[in-house]
Amino acid sequence: MNTLPGGNFARLLQAMGTAAKEVEETLEHVLPKPHGLHGRIHEAMRYAIFAGGKRLRPFLVVQCAGLFDVNPVRALRAAAAIEVLHTYSLVHDDLPCMDDDDLRRGRPTAHKAFDEATAVLAGDALLTIAFEILAHPDTHPSADVRCRLVARLAEAAGSNGMIGGQMIDMRASQSAFGADEVILLQQLKTGQLFEFSCEAGAILGEAGTEHQTRLRDYAKDMGLVFQITDDLLDVTSTAEKTGKAVGKDKDQGKATLVSLHGVAGARSEAEKIANRAVAALSPYGSEANELRALPPFLLGRES
Amino acid sequence: MNTLPGGNFARLLQAMGTAAKEVEETLEHVLPKPHGLHGRIHEAMRYAIFAGGKRLRPFLVVQCAGLFDVNPVRALRAAAAIEVLHTYSLVHDDLPCMDDDDLRRGRPTAHKAFDEATAVLAGDALLTIAFEILAHPDTHPSADVRCRLVARLAEAAGSNGMIGGQMIDMRASQSAFGADEVILLQQLKTGQLFEFSCEAGAILGEAGTEHQTRLRDYAKDMGLVFQITDDLLDVTSTAEKTGKAVGKDKDQGKATLVSLHGVAGARSEAEKIANRAVAALSPYGSEANELRALPPFLLGRES
Repeated sequence: MNTLPGGNFARLLQAMGTAAKEVEETLEHVLPKPHGLHGRIHEAMRYAIFAGGKRLRPFLVVQCAGLFDVNPVRALRAAAAIEVLHTYSLVHDDLPCMDDDDLRRGRPTAHKAFDEATAVLAGDALLTIAFEILAHPDTHPSADVRCRLVARLAEAAGSNGMIGGQMIDMRASQSAFGADEVILLQQLKTGQLFEFSCEAGAILGEAGTEHQTRLRDYAKDMGLVFQITDDLLDVTSTAEKTGKAVGKDKDQGKATLVSLHGVAGARSEAEKIANRAVAALSPYGSEANELRALPPFLLGRES
Repeated sequence: MNTLPGGNFARLLQAMGTAAKEVEETLEHVLPKPHGLHGRIHEAMRYAIFAGGKRLRPFLVVQCAGLFDVNPVRALRAAAAIEVLHTYSLVHDDLPCMDDDDLRRGRPTAHKAFDEATAVLAGDALLTIAFEILAHPDTHPSADVRCRLVARLAEAAGSNGMIGGQMIDMRASQSAFGADEVILLQQLKTGQLFEFSCEAGAILGEAGTEHQTRLRDYAKDMGLVFQITDDLLDVTSTAEKTGKAVGKDKDQGKATLVSLHGVAGARSEAEKIANRAVAALSPYGSEANELRALPPFLLGRES
């Protein structure tokens, strides 16, 4: 870990807290208030969204946008879009026909608090509003920028992105996956949204493809660190600490980098990747310090 | 019916067939070919899309775009977007936790042909790619036009549009709905996508809000005629003719304009609305003849 910057996690946690608070204000503003005969759908959307959570993807959008002096209102709208999209994926993943989880962020999952049909529809509605938020002129005065955000998010979240990863994950317990397949699964299922979150900052800042590519590389590695530590927690932590069921990967016979390399091997791999993530940020100055602190912070997380 | 144009249904059917064929070529082009570890998701998307169907919404896009001399390639891309979005709504509506249908367009529904998890994901992927298609520069050279299409489709399909209608429909069997509630349900659940289909032509043609409003009014009424005749078929037709289960509304105790006004009353109401739909097209010349023929054609449909 000696090439990683020292543990300035207090500032990181403060910045994450600020981003979380600000994106929640934006979410409060952009999500419909419950009204009409169909008010139950708005209630379910809000139940799923306002359940706490780290708001890691919004933090990435805000931090990466900050590298290019993007107007914070715009960054927060893009951050809100990625958070509603991420939340839809959780609501659908928790369904009985998918991962069948009763607990999420320490509370009943949406299909438990409401019902399955409402959870399917609330997920659909969150996915839909993500694009509505991005396409709105308040997100950026340039329609070209807004279209690029829409197209890139659709690609990252679609059948060759996050949904493709979820499809592979559904088969993972039946298949003898090696490290390459496990990494592909993770880069699709969780990595693609991290990539979009970071790229969105460069797109909003009209910073050019070199910056977009660099931040995508950072996000790819940061996402792998996130996923490996998630898999480590699944093996080493308790439901009390993580607020969700643990030990599920092993129960379902799913291959992860932890099951393939062991706890020590996976942790060592994660440290190597974390160093590479930080190195990708070399052209940026102190304004990238929080992004630099994130991978080592993730390595030490307990939930 | 005497104010409706004569039964020039041969030309209408030919135009619908041409639009269906052309939009299917576009769909073939824009949908991913099955590939990779996640190829099953592409197979499920294609299974749901290439199942026949009238392609009524694409026909509306193409015809309305034709009023403003829109490049046909652009109109067909918007038409493909609305068709994949419509198909996602069918795939999710058919799920066991929703309408629990085994049969769709005469074939097993997606969750029967694949499995529930794959059907949820395929629906999600179809919804996502709808926005990807619209945001792509091939759909229109003006990013402003593309953003307006994305924003309008998200609104029409979202929690205050189609999904809101589906939410109300989930409660309809438990509630004593009157005509106002039934019409609201239908204008949200099916009407909003018809409205988008027609408005898309005006947006693509940069025709101004007056045309957009006029075509929305046409679509609103055309959609009601479509829905009332659908409800009539549910009462009077057979599964053999419609390719899906019939008699479900009554079995589920759902209020429809047919259950409220009786078969004759609902048919008379549909004829009145069809006349109004045709009247909305008065500023247009012979290029709107197919749109004029559609409402009376729907009144006489048997499937």
